[in-house]
Amino acid sequence: MMLRDDAALIPGRAGVDTVCTADMLVAGVHFLADDPPADIARKMLRVNLSDLAAMGAEPHGYLLSIAFPAAPEAAWMEAFSAALAEDQARFRVTLLGGDTVSTSGPLTLNVTALGHVPHGQALTRGGARPGDRVAVSGTVGDAGLALLHLLGRVEPFAAEVAEPLMARLRRPEPRLALGRRLRGVASACLDLSDGLFADLGHIAEVSGVAIVLDASSVPFSPAARRVLADRPELLGAAISGGDDYELAFTIPAGTEAALAGIAAECGVELTAIGVVESGQGVRVRGADGQDMALGSGGWRHF
Amino acid sequence: MMLRDDAALIPGRAGVDTVCTADMLVAGVHFLADDPPADIARKMLRVNLSDLAAMGAEPHGYLLSIAFPAAPEAAWMEAFSAALAEDQARFRVTLLGGDTVSTSGPLTLNVTALGHVPHGQALTRGGARPGDRVAVSGTVGDAGLALLHLLGRVEPFAAEVAEPLMARLRRPEPRLALGRRLRGVASACLDLSDGLFADLGHIAEVSGVAIVLDASSVPFSPAARRVLADRPELLGAAISGGDDYELAFTIPAGTEAALAGIAAECGVELTAIGVVESGQGVRVRGADGQDMALGSGGWRHF
Repeated sequence: MMLRDDAALIPGRAGVDTVCTADMLVAGVHFLADDPPADIARKMLRVNLSDLAAMGAEPHGYLLSIAFPAAPEAAWMEAFSAALAEDQARFRVTLLGGDTVSTSGPLTLNVTALGHVPHGQALTRGGARPGDRVAVSGTVGDAGLALLHLLGRVEPFAAEVAEPLMARLRRPEPRLALGRRLRGVASACLDLSDGLFADLGHIAEVSGVAIVLDASSVPFSPAARRVLADRPELLGAAISGGDDYELAFTIPAGTEAALAGIAAECGVELTAIGVVESGQGVRVRGADGQDMALGSGGWRHF
Repeated sequence: MMLRDDAALIPGRAGVDTVCTADMLVAGVHFLADDPPADIARKMLRVNLSDLAAMGAEPHGYLLSIAFPAAPEAAWMEAFSAALAEDQARFRVTLLGGDTVSTSGPLTLNVTALGHVPHGQALTRGGARPGDRVAVSGTVGDAGLALLHLLGRVEPFAAEVAEPLMARLRRPEPRLALGRRLRGVASACLDLSDGLFADLGHIAEVSGVAIVLDASSVPFSPAARRVLADRPELLGAAISGGDDYELAFTIPAGTEAALAGIAAECGVELTAIGVVESGQGVRVRGADGQDMALGSGGWRHF
């Protein structure tokens, strides 16, 4: 962690923009203090890489600041560092610097991730236009359901269901290959951190459009489908729950046919889940074509 | 603080390197929770700008992550933001992004600062060579003495002495113009954060040389001189105390004559305070030419 100099250097290249993003994670808020240190390390790095993916950027490196409540156990540090080293190799990023301090409070981590994208090709939230189709990668709602289970806010799920959901919460998969592939293809893009419903709202707001989400098209994992079969009232939680770190994006009408090829190339499922209209906000449409509203008991028809 | 997209973009330029550095500050460790919010804001930004100065870089922008123990008072936020806005304008940096979270612990801030430097011209800690002269900007020890006073570890200083010392602790002055001017001039450079003695040790270690510090040449402010006149036993604390954020650097022998001109250009005092020799570590030489050692009672002759 010790820097040789006061700061790290990244060589500049003409026509290549640097993308930077920061996330702070606090024990007891973003993860539990007794979560496995390897999972804390992975999540911390990957949520930042996911932000780079959402911009279509190639990861370069990161700065890591840690405030420790006490000197960490050697075994904790080893597991944390080993997981980081593994992810650094896997995602080809290097530790550029950072800071290590002490705190009277909970373990607090800040990662600033830096990446590169060809000039003018970064994906943004602002390019969705009426008529565009809305798509999402992978499956939605796993992490949100896992969190309800972990916090005891629902009757506990059976182990064979809880386990794959928890894995999604603890080990998000930044969609870096997809993000890069969507340069010049997607009209708007972001990663799902606040939840599908809220995040589509961000695209709608920044692009100045309305988004109609087709609830019956939202892709769920086998585990989430099992949960929702038993407890359909959790559909709202699945659509609104955060931390999936999939990419949601819009593409111009008529280009949907390209989705299957891109999905195969990037090794990730892509599903069309809605359309962009003029107007504002996000509407959720049920299988019967009627709008639904999010109430205290979940989604219901108007 | 809300980002429009998932990350910020910095246009790349051929032949220009990006410099990045991060610092985390925790209430109760790096500042006091009831310090004026404007001072917290300024210190947080300036210690990072000082790292850029130490590399000879031009500041570009910064990412700010804040963990709040509770929703901050409106008056606190206003004073904090106003001071940041003032410093942003003064140092020509923009807020590129960041994160705002909550914590059960103390107020915790992380700044990642980004700057630019022509390719190959960044100042490092590794270029000091035997025969080089050692110089420092401004005055040394003010912040360290202020901290002793603030923490009640010494008999309180008189107000007219304490005030200018406290200003140095709370409102460090990043030596950005000097850092840029030292490109191609200094063989090694860093900013004083750990204290003059320890920081010269960093240059000695990374450069693989010894540094001989001439104690009688170390520049002290009028306030520090008044303190040391009354309490000469605090000399060691002044030379070892951190947080001055001046630049310490080495220049090749024979180029000392340029120092006066550079000082005038950059509007900051520069003082030659030692020499680089072969060997390792830092030795402190007294006015009589004999080496001194840092004991529990301060610096003394062997």
